[in-house]
Amino acid sequence: MSIASPTATLLISCPDQKGLVAKIASFVYSNGGNIIHADQHTDDSAGLFLLRLEWQLEGFNLPRNLIAPAFGSIAQPLQAQWQLHFSDDTPRIAIWVSRQDHCLFDLIWRQKSRRILRQKISLIISNHPHLEAIAQQFGIAYHHIPITAETKLQQEAQQLELLKQYNIDLVVLAKYMQVLSSHFVANFPQIINIHHSFLPAFAGANPYHRAFERGVKIIGATAHYVTQELDEGPIIEQDVVRVSHRDRVADLIRKGKDLERMVLARAVRLHLQNRVLVYGNRTVVFA
Amino acid sequence: MSIASPTATLLISCPDQKGLVAKIASFVYSNGGNIIHADQHTDDSAGLFLLRLEWQLEGFNLPRNLIAPAFGSIAQPLQAQWQLHFSDDTPRIAIWVSRQDHCLFDLIWRQKSRRILRQKISLIISNHPHLEAIAQQFGIAYHHIPITAETKLQQEAQQLELLKQYNIDLVVLAKYMQVLSSHFVANFPQIINIHHSFLPAFAGANPYHRAFERGVKIIGATAHYVTQELDEGPIIEQDVVRVSHRDRVADLIRKGKDLERMVLARAVRLHLQNRVLVYGNRTVVFA
Amino acid sequence: MSIASPTATLLISCPDQKGLVAKIASFVYSNGGNIIHADQHTDDSAGLFLLRLEWQLEGFNLPRNLIAPAFGSIAQPLQAQWQLHFSDDTPRIAIWVSRQDHCLFDLIWRQKSRRILRQKISLIISNHPHLEAIAQQFGIAYHHIPITAETKLQQEAQQLELLKQYNIDLVVLAKYMQVLSSHFVANFPQIINIHHSFLPAFAGANPYHRAFERGVKIIGATAHYVTQELDEGPIIEQDVVRVSHRDRVADLIRKGKDLERMVLARAVRLHLQNRVLVYGNRTVVFA
Amino acid sequence: MSIASPTATLLISCPDQKGLVAKIASFVYSNGGNIIHADQHTDDSAGLFLLRLEWQLEGFNLPRNLIAPAFGSIAQPLQAQWQLHFSDDTPRIAIWVSRQDHCLFDLIWRQKSRRILRQKISLIISNHPHLEAIAQQFGIAYHHIPITAETKLQQEAQQLELLKQYNIDLVVLAKYMQVLSSHFVANFPQIINIHHSFLPAFAGANPYHRAFERGVKIIGATAHYVTQELDEGPIIEQDVVRVSHRDRVADLIRKGKDLERMVLARAVRLHLQNRVLVYGNRTVVFA
Repeated sequence: MSIASPTATLLISCPDQKGLVAKIASFVYSNGGNIIHADQHTDDSAGLFLLRLEWQLEGFNLPRNLIAPAFGSIAQPLQAQWQLHFSDDTPRIAIWVSRQDHCLFDLIWRQKSRRILRQKISLIISNHPHLEAIAQQFGIAYHHIPITAETKLQQEAQQLELLKQYNIDLVVLAKYMQVLSSHFVANFPQIINIHHSFLPAFAGANPYHRAFERGVKIIGATAHYVTQELDEGPIIEQDVVRVSHRDRVADLIRKGKDLERMVLARAVRLHLQNRVLVYGNRTVVFA
Repeated sequence: MSIASPTATLLISCPDQKGLVAKIASFVYSNGGNIIHADQHTDDSAGLFLLRLEWQLEGFNLPRNLIAPAFGSIAQPLQAQWQLHFSDDTPRIAIWVSRQDHCLFDLIWRQKSRRILRQKISLIISNHPHLEAIAQQFGIAYHHIPITAETKLQQEAQQLELLKQYNIDLVVLAKYMQVLSSHFVANFPQIINIHHSFLPAFAGANPYHRAFERGVKIIGATAHYVTQELDEGPIIEQDVVRVSHRDRVADLIRKGKDLERMVLARAVRLHLQNRVLVYGNRTVVFA
Repeated sequence: MSIASPTATLLISCPDQKGLVAKIASFVYSNGGNIIHADQHTDDSAGLFLLRLEWQLEGFNLPRNLIAPAFGSIAQPLQAQWQLHFSDDTPRIAIWVSRQDHCLFDLIWRQKSRRILRQKISLIISNHPHLEAIAQQFGIAYHHIPITAETKLQQEAQQLELLKQYNIDLVVLAKYMQVLSSHFVANFPQIINIHHSFLPAFAGANPYHRAFERGVKIIGATAHYVTQELDEGPIIEQDVVRVSHRDRVADLIRKGKDLERMVLARAVRLHLQNRVLVYGNRTVVFA
Repeated sequence: MSIASPTATLLISCPDQKGLVAKIASFVYSNGGNIIHADQHTDDSAGLFLLRLEWQLEGFNLPRNLIAPAFGSIAQPLQAQWQLHFSDDTPRIAIWVSRQDHCLFDLIWRQKSRRILRQKISLIISNHPHLEAIAQQFGIAYHHIPITAETKLQQEAQQLELLKQYNIDLVVLAKYMQVLSSHFVANFPQIINIHHSFLPAFAGANPYHRAFERGVKIIGATAHYVTQELDEGPIIEQDVVRVSHRDRVADLIRKGKDLERMVLARAVRLHLQNRVLVYGNRTVVFA
């Protein structure tokens, strides 16, 4: 995590075959790179090899702009899908909220204390005006874009325009209580959402009320990538907290808020550290 | 938990009104009882008062057989539902299994080390012959009652007959992989089941396979009373364990087995200590 | 938690004897009170009875200022120690910090969203100037009182003066990295501290470094009342998080910060809801 | 975990330098091995590279007995310490107990259901006669070797003799309430112990009583390798469970027993799967 020495990270998935670790590690070594993290997973049932490889750029012989082309020639015969990231890249983040401030506040604190979340929160979008004061307090642009059933598609166009204008790499739905259209998701696929239940239990609306009705003894929260199926995207992180008969719905909400912000923050961090690899509807988290 | 001094326990629920604690506690006090546990819960939304009261029988002026009639005259005007239990009662337990031995083995160990589960396991019923050796090893009666779609009702009649013959108070479904008919549940309502998922997620068949498919990061187990709706009965206890992409279905099953036996054992213990009060489809657990 | 109907809460401890629940509940009932929470604990080894009783003030016949004298006459023959609190009392809180902002920020957020922490943060005291900007941002008084070995006693006198001036009821040490003198603790006993370890492991300085050295697989945080023995006061709340060989000291600190703010917030909330009863060096938490 | 296809596992530690992953993976690849698990850790502060590499033996060109010599010539210039294991090796285990049966019973159950613990429990040693019946029930040799301060060294000689006679590879102290001498540990270094506390809290005798005295809100258990310093060896696994003021010492013991057997079983499994690498007083657990 040291800022002093930037690193490169490869996230790779390809059909399993012999020699993959050797070939890829040799690519780094033959160019003078010192590997500081290598973690491999093989999914037998999918016949898939998945790897995260991180090495120090200091002393690496290839200039940054030549790494991708050079690795591409290795990856192509392997039919590999791969991403290359540099640790000193700082993706630009948009946080979307509705009226609840807990996840927003938490992410802003983490961004302020830069060791935890170094990336810049460039933009806050909300379908409500309520949290504008927080945005102002911390000097972050705030766009209030109200949504109704009638205006949804048109407003999403405006949202997409803002994401382009601010050069956003990642959208974090920090308790944004609107469902994004398939069209939107197709046009901007890098979205992390926090759902206030232990998915797949209580997908959809009012999970805390339904958890109370069902009389569960544990509640949860789930951070996942957004796909076109509501609450069905690949799960990045989940956590739970114990509840009892003493806890009313208001208590579930209170306890849940603490869960939500922890789970969302961990998921965003894992994503931004390039530790999450999606395949099918699943994730490998190289933690 | 001291065996030396037996206690009486009242579990009461009634419409909330003023003076309930005072009236009920005074009943115990006026008869010379020393209360060692009093725990009250009020469910606002249901307008319901729920209480567990436990007192030492030593020095109590009413003989055991007069406590119920005496308390009944207090309870009736309150429209209370109530149960009276004595700590040295030892309910007779039947354990039902299929082929998996982990919950059975665990409950037997707990029963052997009597401080954990003092009650007697009188009977094991299984739709398979596989675990008979364990029953013999520990000297417990084992009845193999195979079930097919055709023979189910008739075999259930035999099962009910056995429960009557062995004077069973509680049936524990310790991974019994058959669904009981509504008729059976109506005739023998004291049944605790362990379901190998974090209900309401993955109710029904093959929860570990479905959890693997969904890519969840945490799996769970749920102990609940059996009602006529499959996997929908009042939940007594739940617990979870973290899994990762490294865990295949076989690993979920392995980790889940440890969860299942812990959760089931805790639920059985809470029930046998008269700490669980069911109302609607919910439980109050006076832990 | 409803603000609409204020409640009174009694926290009582006294030598165990028969009739205590009946007597105390009858006091409430005979004055027309509706008990909404009654929870009793008996510590056998200490021969001690401990009770929390909460009832609605609406419809209670005694005016507030007469409840204490009236109950006093019941408590005295029982040799009881007791406290009476009203739910609409709002104790005034001082938060003490050094340079780390995470617990402070968290408590301020909770106070802003008033359902979680209704009480007022009246004062921030720090031995460093670093967090003054946060205090200003949220409009809370900030006093920078640097401490050296030489100035400690004199500065503590100033701190006590400030607590008096601001009418403070509770001091929360939210990562205040100074040890309070015995004299201070004797003069202001209502202090909650967060220690960044799972006490009694790693009491004292540098717990995360020592946890890393020892190679533990789990780290923790502990909220406790401050007594004259460093890190030895009655524990209110603890929690833990799993770590692995991948976690360096910096990662333990990062994970620990999330723990610290959760554990401290829970402890402060339990205290302010009058759910914590101290006896000897232990607490009963009527959660 | 499939028994069908045996694997080889290398556990390696050496001073960090460039090219280690490439060199070691190439050794496997150039001999036709398919790597199914590669996980690397670098300890910056120690300047140490640590790796676990597992590959399928099917199709591997080197016969088993030549793998070690061949790898040795690669390892030597790297100043590497390394171990080579085959997944179908079945180390022979001795379980040492005193009077408590819970960990013994649990390990026997896991061994019976062979998917969880495939290795053979060859021998039970106890300083008490109490658990001999269990050993007989499951057909395992039981040696009762009473220990007093006077007879300790002489009895340890007999114990060492038994370990040799039964060809034991791993000793599991499953609540063996005696301290082994330094001489013993020096002569038989492969020992896993379960300590009934969250180390380093409550090292030594009577941890549950001391946890009760201290009023902790969470208790734990720790599995570690035994070294000459009591309760100071490298930690393999820890876990915790929440307790409350309602839990007396007997309840801590009861809850702790469930923890102990889980934590011990997990540690033994990790060790037997060659997932634990000790360096200094720490472990890397390639889970």
